[in-house]
Amino acid sequence: MTDVTHPLPPQGAVAVIFVSMRTDADQPGYDAAAGAMMALVARQPGYLGADSARGADGFGITVSYWADEASARAWRAVAEHAAVRALGRARWYAHYRLIVSQVTRAYAWHRGEPVSE
Amino acid sequence: MTDVTHPLPPQGAVAVIFVSMRTDADQPGYDAAAGAMMALVARQPGYLGADSARGADGFGITVSYWADEASARAWRAVAEHAAVRALGRARWYAHYRLIVSQVTRAYAWHRGEPVSE
Repeated sequence: MTDVTHPLPPQGAVAVIFVSMRTDADQPGYDAAAGAMMALVARQPGYLGADSARGADGFGITVSYWADEASARAWRAVAEHAAVRALGRARWYAHYRLIVSQVTRAYAWHRGEPVSE
Repeated sequence: MTDVTHPLPPQGAVAVIFVSMRTDADQPGYDAAAGAMMALVARQPGYLGADSARGADGFGITVSYWADEASARAWRAVAEHAAVRALGRARWYAHYRLIVSQVTRAYAWHRGEPVSE
């Protein structure tokens, strides 16, 4: 995702921080699954958007934003998502961390705009 | 950062999510400032570690973890950090977002370990 089109998450939203290191295995399978998950999560109730970046070394961070704890947990329970997580552990990730947090405040700045932070 | 050596942030820790798009300007200056900030932040009271990834397209995410809200705010007030933020707006970033959140839970998985999430 090279640009940020979703609104800033409001106070009280849930930010799920997924920090991962890719193996060098199965890039086509990983790309296909990532695309399928992006399409699926976008239809999930309470989904507010996501930001994602991965460096050439395979280390990446994806943050997804949710209206509340219940919607974040519901996404975790979606069967297709659970199946892809299992594939991730079998093939695509060397290690990962999942950090769930609650948004307290947020700011944005674009070039040419005044600074609000 | 290609590996994760800091402990998982505990419940109640503060996660500061910095989402940014680099301009294509001044890569040497950016790299030097990033290195200097990494060295400075590591000595900051309450600093618990950070994860950072940036793709070839210039879109990046850095998450820093803090013992509490006070230590996260204190880092924001450090003069060298404020000066580098101003340079970032002048030169290095096309846009950015800063999302401050409080950790509610965290999990880690490494290949070969059982799944705890």
